[in-house]
Amino acid sequence: MSNITSNVRTLYWDRDALVLIDQCALPQRLDYVRCASVAAIADAIRTMVVRGAPAIGIAAAYGVVLAASAAYKTHRDDWQVAVARELDLLRAARPTAVNLAWAIDSMVEQFQRIQGDPSTSLLAHANDLFQADVAANLAMGELGAALLGSANQVITHCNAGALATAGYGTALGVIRSAWKVGKLEHVFATETRPWLQGARLTAWELHADNIPVTLIADSAAAHLMSRGNISWVITGADRVAANGDTANKIGTYSLAVNARAHGVRFMVVAPLSTIDRTTAQGSDIPIEERPGDELLAFHEQRIAAPGVDAYNPVFDTTPAELIDVLVTQKGVVHNPNLESIRQLFETQN
Amino acid sequence: MSNITSNVRTLYWDRDALVLIDQCALPQRLDYVRCASVAAIADAIRTMVVRGAPAIGIAAAYGVVLAASAAYKTHRDDWQVAVARELDLLRAARPTAVNLAWAIDSMVEQFQRIQGDPSTSLLAHANDLFQADVAANLAMGELGAALLGSANQVITHCNAGALATAGYGTALGVIRSAWKVGKLEHVFATETRPWLQGARLTAWELHADNIPVTLIADSAAAHLMSRGNISWVITGADRVAANGDTANKIGTYSLAVNARAHGVRFMVVAPLSTIDRTTAQGSDIPIEERPGDELLAFHEQRIAAPGVDAYNPVFDTTPAELIDVLVTQKGVVHNPNLESIRQLFETQN
Repeated sequence: MSNITSNVRTLYWDRDALVLIDQCALPQRLDYVRCASVAAIADAIRTMVVRGAPAIGIAAAYGVVLAASAAYKTHRDDWQVAVARELDLLRAARPTAVNLAWAIDSMVEQFQRIQGDPSTSLLAHANDLFQADVAANLAMGELGAALLGSANQVITHCNAGALATAGYGTALGVIRSAWKVGKLEHVFATETRPWLQGARLTAWELHADNIPVTLIADSAAAHLMSRGNISWVITGADRVAANGDTANKIGTYSLAVNARAHGVRFMVVAPLSTIDRTTAQGSDIPIEERPGDELLAFHEQRIAAPGVDAYNPVFDTTPAELIDVLVTQKGVVHNPNLESIRQLFETQN
Repeated sequence: MSNITSNVRTLYWDRDALVLIDQCALPQRLDYVRCASVAAIADAIRTMVVRGAPAIGIAAAYGVVLAASAAYKTHRDDWQVAVARELDLLRAARPTAVNLAWAIDSMVEQFQRIQGDPSTSLLAHANDLFQADVAANLAMGELGAALLGSANQVITHCNAGALATAGYGTALGVIRSAWKVGKLEHVFATETRPWLQGARLTAWELHADNIPVTLIADSAAAHLMSRGNISWVITGADRVAANGDTANKIGTYSLAVNARAHGVRFMVVAPLSTIDRTTAQGSDIPIEERPGDELLAFHEQRIAAPGVDAYNPVFDTTPAELIDVLVTQKGVVHNPNLESIRQLFETQN
């Protein structure tokens, strides 16, 4: 696979294993983790060695390849059945991002067409999903950048970049495309507590591409908006409901409320695989809570007093009415709602 | 001085020196720092060994005692002149909190009345300011708690507690008083990036008083408000302008915007010494920017990629129209504005 984004190879297949950048080690170290089993991939998803909704989906697709290959060796006649339990475990590795389920479903749909050893055809399908994700990001980058005027200062939250996808990024794809065509002046990246995706990943990625980026505390975004120089907030999504309500990293909702209060426009960039039309609205999206230790300690050093606990929801839901535009690879939806999203899916290519 | 709040002795005078809890070391260690010179106190304010607008003011008052005592030893006839440069340095230690200048001015006003060695009478005046701050906090606690209905779940930001004052606290004073009278169900303390005053100080203080407290990421407050169980946001202030615009820890403004959007009421608790009637409005308040390293590193370990910079304003301004009530020791101002604040000052006691 060609290297399309400035040395960032988030994940790639290499001789019967999936190789992942260890996103827990960035930016101190650029380590690669080799996952040769579906259990290793589920673990990498759970522990956030790989994160970002599209990247999780692609990693899971390769997980299905590994699960099916292993099952075929021990259960030649009923590997499709033997593999089911492992795929359930893989599906449960993170609850909020819908791309995980979407990618596993897409792989499982191939099962019935397969005669004999499933390895080759499943690997080919996983590679197709990988390439389609990159192509979608490039298309969204162009569509999103076309919406911007000149000399934009934008805020982005968390990491919806090359590291969150098969390459190029969703929100950061739009930012990369805008930079290329001279429409971008500056990116303010929120540090994104508690996991610091902004400080550790987005700043690293953008700096590596020489795109001017400045880190801010999550809580400083409103102050920055009040100064009047921010034109857009641009984020990715972990799941978009049928009506356009969007689950994304905790803090996205606060940014959307503040953007509306300051006349700053709000853009969500997400491939079709992130839109879950079986989920009616935001309140139906499960919100993952992670251990309070992510807030109570830093690198195993306790921050808060002993005995204190923390509430750590890592996603929140932004209602569709706060989203000015949803950018997908199939087109742009202004003021997304049930009807406009339905039309997006029903439009012929 | 009596110990009025659960073993928290933020600062106290002891044999020719001011003793301060080292707030940089909390909650890992409860260390005390002994400051025997005005330079040591200015340094403690600058490095945030002592922080919180009222506590900074009281510490500065004792700094004036030390400066005058030292100057009298070397410049018996013109110690008032000799001391001027050191008081300028003290005044410049932090730019946003107005209590610092207020306390120094109050001490300097005593100078003209002094014959001979100024130590005793200045120390008496600093002690008066200390006791008045505690009394103001107790009064505000009662006034603020009276505004609450029953079974409140509240959000507080930063630390406006015993540690930020001579004792009891401003916002946490209201919370302590509400807890005492059975009106408080739960406190959610924002961790307060970048310095983590909420995680390190507020959680420690409230837990020490057995007040139920849960830590959240700053960016999770909006999500929590959207769940519908938060009745009030209660914060302190670093400076209130003549029209009620309020400078406070970065993130306060975002909380106020979100509170208004969710029908959550917003209370600012601040003694009269925090109200600066010579500052017309919020945009006239200088906003301190601290080194980007507070965001780029944690305990000297770099978080962000090399070469990345950060913008680190540590205060923001909340316009008066987002403040439902301003609580002072002299009374409560609903919907604060130029006129209602003028009336507060002109009302006879």
